[in-house]
Amino acid sequence: MKGFNINMDILLNEDEKIEDLQCNGLKIIQNKKWFCFGMDAVLLTNYCDIKNNSKIVDLGTGTGIIPILLSGKKNYSKAYAVEIQEEVAEMARRSVELNNLQDKIEILNIDLNDAGKYLEPNSFDAVISNPPYKLSNSGIVNPTDKKAISRHEIKCSLEDVIKTAAMLLKQYGRFYMVHRPDRLADIICLLRKYRLEPKQIRFVHPRAAEKPNMVLIRASKNGNPELKFDPPLYIYDNEDKYTKDVYEIYGMEVPE
Amino acid sequence: MKGFNINMDILLNEDEKIEDLQCNGLKIIQNKKWFCFGMDAVLLTNYCDIKNNSKIVDLGTGTGIIPILLSGKKNYSKAYAVEIQEEVAEMARRSVELNNLQDKIEILNIDLNDAGKYLEPNSFDAVISNPPYKLSNSGIVNPTDKKAISRHEIKCSLEDVIKTAAMLLKQYGRFYMVHRPDRLADIICLLRKYRLEPKQIRFVHPRAAEKPNMVLIRASKNGNPELKFDPPLYIYDNEDKYTKDVYEIYGMEVPE
Repeated sequence: MKGFNINMDILLNEDEKIEDLQCNGLKIIQNKKWFCFGMDAVLLTNYCDIKNNSKIVDLGTGTGIIPILLSGKKNYSKAYAVEIQEEVAEMARRSVELNNLQDKIEILNIDLNDAGKYLEPNSFDAVISNPPYKLSNSGIVNPTDKKAISRHEIKCSLEDVIKTAAMLLKQYGRFYMVHRPDRLADIICLLRKYRLEPKQIRFVHPRAAEKPNMVLIRASKNGNPELKFDPPLYIYDNEDKYTKDVYEIYGMEVPE
Repeated sequence: MKGFNINMDILLNEDEKIEDLQCNGLKIIQNKKWFCFGMDAVLLTNYCDIKNNSKIVDLGTGTGIIPILLSGKKNYSKAYAVEIQEEVAEMARRSVELNNLQDKIEILNIDLNDAGKYLEPNSFDAVISNPPYKLSNSGIVNPTDKKAISRHEIKCSLEDVIKTAAMLLKQYGRFYMVHRPDRLADIICLLRKYRLEPKQIRFVHPRAAEKPNMVLIRASKNGNPELKFDPPLYIYDNEDKYTKDVYEIYGMEVPE
């Protein structure tokens, strides 16, 4: 039986469901009414080159998808996952318990701007973030809405995320982020402002003939300027099927 | 007869040849021993959206390819083309005469850092540049060599080019540049430093499955932050033939 280490005593609240992550039996709780993790979180997790025994932080973890999925792919020693929304953090904590990962993953229900009070500065090997993409002034209906908080820079700005990552990372520590290409100028200038040197970029395109709609980026604290591009990642091929790359990232077999 | 307005009294020096630009009968002189224009100059020219009656500047014109080729595509009123190398500027001037474009294109044999002495600041609609790509410390054999000066930042740095462009452009004037993707962080940060806001980016890839090897960028003087990406441009298709896009840019018919 797959997922033998799943703790089935976890209670689900109304509107919650358990999703199988198709990776080492890992599962995650999602609330249908809140923000559900998307392909961007999966692609970011796959982009992270995390060394064995690393100490890592996920800023704005939401459901906890990144540290949970990463636990099935990399052998990090400890992940601290920061989430400002109390009920979302509580759900992520139950997902950690569901997978019996309490020793590896600690969910911190704090404002990431206060991370320095709870986590040791200059001590982490990697910081990861799939932050809200949209500016807080761009068409928000309800700023207390959980989806809005996950999508818009209401509780934290892009600068807050980058500043906190820089504070937490040790020398040459790695920062991994996924974001929208239309924020690339802001991203690059803010990274440099906080001495996180952009080292690697991969654009994600829906199809090869289309413009990119996501950017994966790796930066190095106090690194030397040396930016490399990866080949682009295309989600769909010309026949509107997932590309081989996507199947591989999701750990699924390519259909004949 | 195509090219009826070609002035055939122009003298060629040793090692020079005349090349047909396959565009309205335009021709250009190149010296086989110096830096010859490449696909990047053609792609940059094609990327430039120049309004009728614009006053434009080309920084580091080399052979004069950009203003000469652009004269066949856009109806600008006047182009000033800056070239620091005396013999290269002289050759470009003969190419301008060869095409009877003396009224439209003026070759200035000056250091682009002195452009403010010869050209009116804050007055140009567009500034274009295909500058040297390589840092001056990266493996130069001979810093007086013409090819080295065209390829490495010996006589001007990326910052000199961007600073001069910002000085020459009028409010919301457009800066167009082609460069290497590995310099993108420098490019974006320098553009913002001189208040040229990055507005549009197109990556050029040898093939769809490969990383980009050129970046085309448009910035706007004092523009608001709003960066858009174009679909990528691929040079070769899966059968190693030029793509339709490349045929179109070169104004050639796609072979059956």
